[in-house]
Amino acid sequence: MPAEFEEHKKTWMIWPERPDVWRDNAIHAQHAYVTVAEIIAEFEPVTMCASKTQWEKARAMLPRYIRVVEMSSNDAWMRDQGPTFVVNKQGEVCGVDWKFNAWGGIYSPWDQDELIAWKVLEIEGVNRYGGPMVLEGGSIEVDGEGTLITTEECLLNSNRNPDLTKQNIERNLSEHLGVEKIIWLPRGVYNDTSGHIDNLCRFVQPGVLVLTWTDDKSDPQYEISNEAYNQLIREKDAKGRPFVLVKIPQPEPLFITKEEVAGLTITKNTAPRIAGDRLPASYVNFFIVDNGVLVPTFDDPQDPIALQTLQKLLPHRRVVQVYSREILLGGGNIHCITLQQPFGK
Amino acid sequence: MPAEFEEHKKTWMIWPERPDVWRDNAIHAQHAYVTVAEIIAEFEPVTMCASKTQWEKARAMLPRYIRVVEMSSNDAWMRDQGPTFVVNKQGEVCGVDWKFNAWGGIYSPWDQDELIAWKVLEIEGVNRYGGPMVLEGGSIEVDGEGTLITTEECLLNSNRNPDLTKQNIERNLSEHLGVEKIIWLPRGVYNDTSGHIDNLCRFVQPGVLVLTWTDDKSDPQYEISNEAYNQLIREKDAKGRPFVLVKIPQPEPLFITKEEVAGLTITKNTAPRIAGDRLPASYVNFFIVDNGVLVPTFDDPQDPIALQTLQKLLPHRRVVQVYSREILLGGGNIHCITLQQPFGK
Repeated sequence: MPAEFEEHKKTWMIWPERPDVWRDNAIHAQHAYVTVAEIIAEFEPVTMCASKTQWEKARAMLPRYIRVVEMSSNDAWMRDQGPTFVVNKQGEVCGVDWKFNAWGGIYSPWDQDELIAWKVLEIEGVNRYGGPMVLEGGSIEVDGEGTLITTEECLLNSNRNPDLTKQNIERNLSEHLGVEKIIWLPRGVYNDTSGHIDNLCRFVQPGVLVLTWTDDKSDPQYEISNEAYNQLIREKDAKGRPFVLVKIPQPEPLFITKEEVAGLTITKNTAPRIAGDRLPASYVNFFIVDNGVLVPTFDDPQDPIALQTLQKLLPHRRVVQVYSREILLGGGNIHCITLQQPFGK
Repeated sequence: MPAEFEEHKKTWMIWPERPDVWRDNAIHAQHAYVTVAEIIAEFEPVTMCASKTQWEKARAMLPRYIRVVEMSSNDAWMRDQGPTFVVNKQGEVCGVDWKFNAWGGIYSPWDQDELIAWKVLEIEGVNRYGGPMVLEGGSIEVDGEGTLITTEECLLNSNRNPDLTKQNIERNLSEHLGVEKIIWLPRGVYNDTSGHIDNLCRFVQPGVLVLTWTDDKSDPQYEISNEAYNQLIREKDAKGRPFVLVKIPQPEPLFITKEEVAGLTITKNTAPRIAGDRLPASYVNFFIVDNGVLVPTFDDPQDPIALQTLQKLLPHRRVVQVYSREILLGGGNIHCITLQQPFGK
């Protein structure tokens, strides 16, 4: 599995529409997705997947140079619903189509989400391998040189693969992704229901990790970031290297407002949003594209620090900030809604 | 606009499903489409477009080497609903996305059919040009060297482009397809509601046309074939060449049976099929692929004559017969359900 900072053929996204996740019938989220797609398209091609009922709207709202294909979905987090692209020993790009159960079954239905990875691979003519367990792409982070980082909170959660042991899961990851060293952190970002690694800790190059951080001991995130730091500082990667760890301070805690909740429809099957709920805001959910990096910002005093830190770590890429509150309200951020397709060799 | 007998990149088809056109919930038509797709795939790649509700079924019924992409539709005649592929002066393939009104508005609704040409071009990343009038691909036949043949019954029908004169239509065809000589035959095959040229008369190479034929003066088709023959024998193509005309005898008249009609649902908006209605059966609705030809057959004594005639005319291609009654019951045949995408230069 290539790292995100290796060359991309294109980026995939899914058009948001469900009104119990995206307020005001998803119109604000749609504008935010358009912005993200336009920025990525400055660096590499983008394909947006939109359902039958949304295709014309998506086509009209997006610039012509962004490809819009019809694809049904239950929600709009391509990182988690899409295939995991890998490259085989012949240098051919292939796709792993994992089982999908809507983040542990908390967003019903997911019948269409289950088909997205396969449909993406069909459109591209890329060989498909069925993944033998439930996995979301946002729950794994790789350096492209044999190291994978994940969280126990997600992969060992009884709502994902209750019949598999940690060893079973490690074998599946090794066999399908070609990784040799798997590092298990205990937990993801505070109040991130998925517990995904991609909001907590990410590679910017082999051996160099960024970690979301707070010095406020009263914040539940303090303990989470500290336990991750203290573990990683003692770890080595697949090549035997210790990690360079770079802390990126989180923004001030953000909460969903009463007005924002009022724009959501309520359905039988969705975990309800409650006004005052803390949002899992983190700069670490950035997305690295060819020659660029998209970084979520929150209109927060820490925004420039995050941007400067990432620019220093990725000096040959143009850092672009994206004010992403409307994406965050859905539960994730820029990295969660995007998926890179690598080039083969 | 390249001729069909020039090299193809792939063939497009749409999965049949509407139960007021395809009997027994389309299951027999689906098997027939699978057969056609499998045969074409012996010669060139095939992409099948299937709706959200049918995608899994189509994926399961088709072999893995046939690409299945999600696409909504109102019916399954890619020739008519798809784009007209053309090649510009730089050698790039482009697509004309004509207006579409379901064969003169006789099959409502057609909101999804109107989007198919655009969606095909999006998937392929092929530049799209809007066609400024209603046109179905099956209503035009070209030799790839500047000649186009069509019928007045279709293109001058008041249910297609009532506001355009014959001269307006000729200009649109010339400008968008790069044709210099347009030949208007009066009528299509008897009881073919669309009046399309592609069931009556087709090119097998520049200068050589095949024409469906009967010597039975009591058959209404007799007059139609004769008037076409008598006109074409006096015509010249865009290069000034007279035509070689090859007659292919039609099969014995075929009729839809009571049992077949009983398998159709009835809807408010569909022209009803009536037991005993004559079917527009013709061998001329063949489809030329790279190194092959698919020819509809009807379990009729004329079948071998049609096959031998086409094998003689296309000696370097393998002629494959396809028993196609289940497609014919929908109103068309192999050529109507397929669309070739040419290579650029």
